[in-house]
Amino acid sequence: MKKRYETIVIGGGIIGVSIAYHLAKAGKQTAVFESGEVGKKASRAAAGMLGAHAECDKPGTFFEFARASQTAYKRLTAELKSVSGIDIRRHDGGILKLAFTESDRARLMEMAALDSAEWLTPQEVYEKEPHAAKGILGANFIRDDVHVEPISVCRAFAKGAKLFGADIFEYAPVFSIEAAAGGGVRIQTASGAAEADHAVIASGVWSGVFFQQLGLNKRFYPVKGECLSVWNDSIPLTRTLYHDHCYIVPRHSGKLVIGATMKAGDWNEQPDADGIEAVMKKAKTMLPRIGGLKIDRCWAGLRPETEDGNPYIGRHPENDSILFAAGHFRNGILLAPATGEMITDMILSRPIEPAWEEAFKVDRKEAVHK
Amino acid sequence: MKKRYETIVIGGGIIGVSIAYHLAKAGKQTAVFESGEVGKKASRAAAGMLGAHAECDKPGTFFEFARASQTAYKRLTAELKSVSGIDIRRHDGGILKLAFTESDRARLMEMAALDSAEWLTPQEVYEKEPHAAKGILGANFIRDDVHVEPISVCRAFAKGAKLFGADIFEYAPVFSIEAAAGGGVRIQTASGAAEADHAVIASGVWSGVFFQQLGLNKRFYPVKGECLSVWNDSIPLTRTLYHDHCYIVPRHSGKLVIGATMKAGDWNEQPDADGIEAVMKKAKTMLPRIGGLKIDRCWAGLRPETEDGNPYIGRHPENDSILFAAGHFRNGILLAPATGEMITDMILSRPIEPAWEEAFKVDRKEAVHK
Amino acid sequence: MKKRYETIVIGGGIIGVSIAYHLAKAGKQTAVFESGEVGKKASRAAAGMLGAHAECDKPGTFFEFARASQTAYKRLTAELKSVSGIDIRRHDGGILKLAFTESDRARLMEMAALDSAEWLTPQEVYEKEPHAAKGILGANFIRDDVHVEPISVCRAFAKGAKLFGADIFEYAPVFSIEAAAGGGVRIQTASGAAEADHAVIASGVWSGVFFQQLGLNKRFYPVKGECLSVWNDSIPLTRTLYHDHCYIVPRHSGKLVIGATMKAGDWNEQPDADGIEAVMKKAKTMLPRIGGLKIDRCWAGLRPETEDGNPYIGRHPENDSILFAAGHFRNGILLAPATGEMITDMILSRPIEPAWEEAFKVDRKEAVHK
Amino acid sequence: MKKRYETIVIGGGIIGVSIAYHLAKAGKQTAVFESGEVGKKASRAAAGMLGAHAECDKPGTFFEFARASQTAYKRLTAELKSVSGIDIRRHDGGILKLAFTESDRARLMEMAALDSAEWLTPQEVYEKEPHAAKGILGANFIRDDVHVEPISVCRAFAKGAKLFGADIFEYAPVFSIEAAAGGGVRIQTASGAAEADHAVIASGVWSGVFFQQLGLNKRFYPVKGECLSVWNDSIPLTRTLYHDHCYIVPRHSGKLVIGATMKAGDWNEQPDADGIEAVMKKAKTMLPRIGGLKIDRCWAGLRPETEDGNPYIGRHPENDSILFAAGHFRNGILLAPATGEMITDMILSRPIEPAWEEAFKVDRKEAVHK
Repeated sequence: MKKRYETIVIGGGIIGVSIAYHLAKAGKQTAVFESGEVGKKASRAAAGMLGAHAECDKPGTFFEFARASQTAYKRLTAELKSVSGIDIRRHDGGILKLAFTESDRARLMEMAALDSAEWLTPQEVYEKEPHAAKGILGANFIRDDVHVEPISVCRAFAKGAKLFGADIFEYAPVFSIEAAAGGGVRIQTASGAAEADHAVIASGVWSGVFFQQLGLNKRFYPVKGECLSVWNDSIPLTRTLYHDHCYIVPRHSGKLVIGATMKAGDWNEQPDADGIEAVMKKAKTMLPRIGGLKIDRCWAGLRPETEDGNPYIGRHPENDSILFAAGHFRNGILLAPATGEMITDMILSRPIEPAWEEAFKVDRKEAVHK
Repeated sequence: MKKRYETIVIGGGIIGVSIAYHLAKAGKQTAVFESGEVGKKASRAAAGMLGAHAECDKPGTFFEFARASQTAYKRLTAELKSVSGIDIRRHDGGILKLAFTESDRARLMEMAALDSAEWLTPQEVYEKEPHAAKGILGANFIRDDVHVEPISVCRAFAKGAKLFGADIFEYAPVFSIEAAAGGGVRIQTASGAAEADHAVIASGVWSGVFFQQLGLNKRFYPVKGECLSVWNDSIPLTRTLYHDHCYIVPRHSGKLVIGATMKAGDWNEQPDADGIEAVMKKAKTMLPRIGGLKIDRCWAGLRPETEDGNPYIGRHPENDSILFAAGHFRNGILLAPATGEMITDMILSRPIEPAWEEAFKVDRKEAVHK
Repeated sequence: MKKRYETIVIGGGIIGVSIAYHLAKAGKQTAVFESGEVGKKASRAAAGMLGAHAECDKPGTFFEFARASQTAYKRLTAELKSVSGIDIRRHDGGILKLAFTESDRARLMEMAALDSAEWLTPQEVYEKEPHAAKGILGANFIRDDVHVEPISVCRAFAKGAKLFGADIFEYAPVFSIEAAAGGGVRIQTASGAAEADHAVIASGVWSGVFFQQLGLNKRFYPVKGECLSVWNDSIPLTRTLYHDHCYIVPRHSGKLVIGATMKAGDWNEQPDADGIEAVMKKAKTMLPRIGGLKIDRCWAGLRPETEDGNPYIGRHPENDSILFAAGHFRNGILLAPATGEMITDMILSRPIEPAWEEAFKVDRKEAVHK
Repeated sequence: MKKRYETIVIGGGIIGVSIAYHLAKAGKQTAVFESGEVGKKASRAAAGMLGAHAECDKPGTFFEFARASQTAYKRLTAELKSVSGIDIRRHDGGILKLAFTESDRARLMEMAALDSAEWLTPQEVYEKEPHAAKGILGANFIRDDVHVEPISVCRAFAKGAKLFGADIFEYAPVFSIEAAAGGGVRIQTASGAAEADHAVIASGVWSGVFFQQLGLNKRFYPVKGECLSVWNDSIPLTRTLYHDHCYIVPRHSGKLVIGATMKAGDWNEQPDADGIEAVMKKAKTMLPRIGGLKIDRCWAGLRPETEDGNPYIGRHPENDSILFAAGHFRNGILLAPATGEMITDMILSRPIEPAWEEAFKVDRKEAVHK
């Protein structure tokens, strides 16, 4: 371990390794400190939907940022494969946001007005996905809301960052961060201290402690999601099905990923029997035949929620050496590229889109989303 | 592989390796041919309850045989550990057969008259297991219906048999069996033929084909059982809970084994999502807090059912070289020791309990059970 | 289960499901009977190299057949994704057959004369793969010898066949095959008998029994291969490295697959400690830094070798209802498409390339390969 | 989470949960904060040898303490089973410390003088373990150096503590510890702060940061150990074999646990290919046939080494609210009971054996061991 870097990133989830990738590619001496293994906590647990539309109920700043990140994935798919040899398994089927009730339909219609969305009648839905449940009142089809395999994205970013010269320290929990005597910042890990010109806090729901250590009273709330996967050896399904924050995502491998519960305040990263039962039940309301498929495995992860539901992406209000990139809630996979670019631009003093800077700054007063 | 054995056993499940163990211990040159790995099919899938009482609704020949086998396990626990070094993880808590309805109570009372059973009032049940569901009308407590870990029993029998000189061939499917030219029997495997003075068919639900090849028109029916296990880190529970063919078995490891569905005619050995959901639901009717425990894993196995529900244990009616030990349905783990001894006694021309011989012989006309 | 099909395929490895896919696509009523799960035995164990050049030391009929199959994969990659939704994870880096000795070099030069191969000097090798071991005398680079993920190919073929109307029976071991009373063939499984106009034996090394049952004295020999995979988080490597029947295959996932031992006559499908140690050691002679990577998992599989090293692909000499497609040795993944097409052409009475028919027919007298 | 406990334990490895168990049993309101899952780091990685003799080269204070802990396990085996329902899988075969060279023999002889040890001639060794490698010059046999299954010990302590009223928080990393405003101590976790009268640092190799935060300059060094297990289906072996810090431990399950490398300074908790290869090689020098057994799995863990090789067990020199129990190096499993009792005695102001207090106190000047 070097004793001094240009930038230290705390957290090796998808946000942290995206930042490291973009910084290292820009020639900055970068190190990531991850308490366990890269991408093995909330990132791996995610289904990987690039749901710019799926996760928004209406257009606005958040949606614009999400769209920019979604677009960045198009470029990154080939770039990461070329740099790292790793395929992020982009799946292009798009998503069907299903309406089962009139109120679903009304809500979905708001987004259907966008060019990137297309409203489908029930008949059109069943033509596309004949095994969807009976009784659908229509669906919003968004071709651009594709999905990727999150752990592969993490591995690709991390390996890419390494090959551009970054250090990635796994099994390296950070305990504290403070202003360094000679300028910049200093972190404390089990294996010693390290310093840097800049540090970026990218520790998901575990970021709250570092905010506190740095004098900021921002809280993070875990919203645990429990998931399972099954082997789809017989149902033709090419689009993600989505309803009421539950989804069925068809992977290239032949698996279907099914998620997820929403258990606020639960810090335990293991699924329990009730949670898996609840997810299965919900999935059958969208795709009844899914109950007959073989179970692959069950897991859980913690979505990092903030007070207003938006991530913090920006500088410390009083210390330019410290940056934050945490609190992406359900959107960490989607927003990783744009977050990595935005933090890199800040560190390199490049111009930032003012609306985004304003929306995600740490000392904001109001929510722009929800 | 030798070309000639005294006895060949077809099938390396718990029945087959028990037979091999008892034969090898008696000095017979024995070989087991198993299509996959020892004990990895129906045997491993079982919860391992030695449910002489749990599985019987009334006393009789089947019950007597089951009790004899249950008793044999007492001796075998120490013997197998000494011979093989493997502990079969006997768990001594006994079983509570719960009554939730008046008809449950009436049925359970029939067995409660036995010395080995004890009727408990609701209050007595809750004193023993305070986390059992509300609304219980009483329970039949059977101290002797303990449980073991089936895969460990299989490994212990198999290793014990080897150390007594037997050959255990794994990954050795048998395709056919026939009378050998020079007397005895001849089997055909992928890696060649082998002969023996005696052959024992112990292939569980897959035994039907061999019966047919040997001129006997006996059918076997799979009844698939789907199970899961959870980690019990907090609920005091020392007895198996049992109701309506569903059970919660507390292992020494801290796991609870929960089973099982009854899917007749399903030959697929993997669990599906519906099955696991159904088992969880049923378990919660007995132990509501179980839903909050962490999932360990899910699996399935095929119980081998016969036309009258009893196993076939005995000689071919027309060929003394051929014996059968198959069709143990829900009772394979329980009956393995007595079956192993009975087949060994037959091959060694020792006397057999006439009632058992009659009850389990292959050419019987009527059911003694159910 | 229907009682009568047009074609029954015995064996759900990659050969069996390729045949089923091609037949079902051609509109034939087809059923596959697989003793375990599709692709889970030798197919899954393979590294998936489409090594038309890698596995041949000189041009000839076998090479031509292999090249045709390799070419078929180009079409199939997109077709299978479209039909089944499953991506077979084709990896396009090609292969480097390394020369460490003068005799290596001489042997490799024979293939280097082909248009599809390219001889590289040591310097050129290190430019392409800077982490290859020191001391290389050159390498044969074959761009077309790409690789796929075998289990995904199997799943794609099987799901595709199903969607074209085929039945795929898993956990359905076949015990015997014979001429049916009313013409065609009859097989016996644990769950009953089935008949068909044609049957294809595609059971890999386990095919010998069926040859025997059908009056043909052809033997199959297992050559067990033990493998492991490691996570490559840091070494840039884009091509398969190959030397002395050992290989390091870079997967899109970031894993390196390392194989394989050659243990003739070993029917056990599990790896042992010695085997894994031997493979690791060999891999380090090609890529020294591989020893520092984290282990993913270990496994083994049985390559089906025939007397002359070539597969049997063709009709029974005396019974047109019976066909064989077995004994592909190290080349099952590579040859699956061409084998599936050739068997389909035979059943549909389409013309076959005479040289291939002659080379692979069951009653051939001499080897064309090795 | 309560806001105030009597004692907070930081770390849910075997040391932490032993302390919590003993405190809760004594009626103290106790909470454990564990960053991941109970016992899943170094504790689970250990083989579980209670090697009071195996790990000491000569008698002395350390040895006396180890013997006391070894003896405590005798009582705990039954107690933990009764309290928690979990069996810690004590295996009573003892250990053979093998001498292959004259210098081995000389060193082993020092301990052989103890009543609890027995020197065996080569012939006596081979009578006990006929499959041990040729060329042994003798062995020290210690019957009391039995072994347990560490993860089961951890689960039993943790569940027992819970049932005595303790709170066990998993997935609860602690970031800092400091004196609380109103007396006692205050810790900061991701999910909030908690206070207590006493805190015990029991975080293994990760304890160094907390020492520092509390003003003590003690360093901890990881010594990574890589292990594998194989399935012993055929070798009679009832004693642990030990030589040159390498061991082969026969489990009740039929597995052999083989360990371990000694990689100083490596914080990564995953095994690499080189490490596993090295361990296998060493194991074969003791038990040649082990190479033919099937691999079960591979893993690694970090032993926490201190500057003088002894653990720190005692109070903070200047703050009675803070205690330490960390740095048990290779002896965490062995020393867990005595450490738990000693810390509990300190908190309850019971008398402590002065020699132990002196040997393990935090502000000691010299090593008593090594």
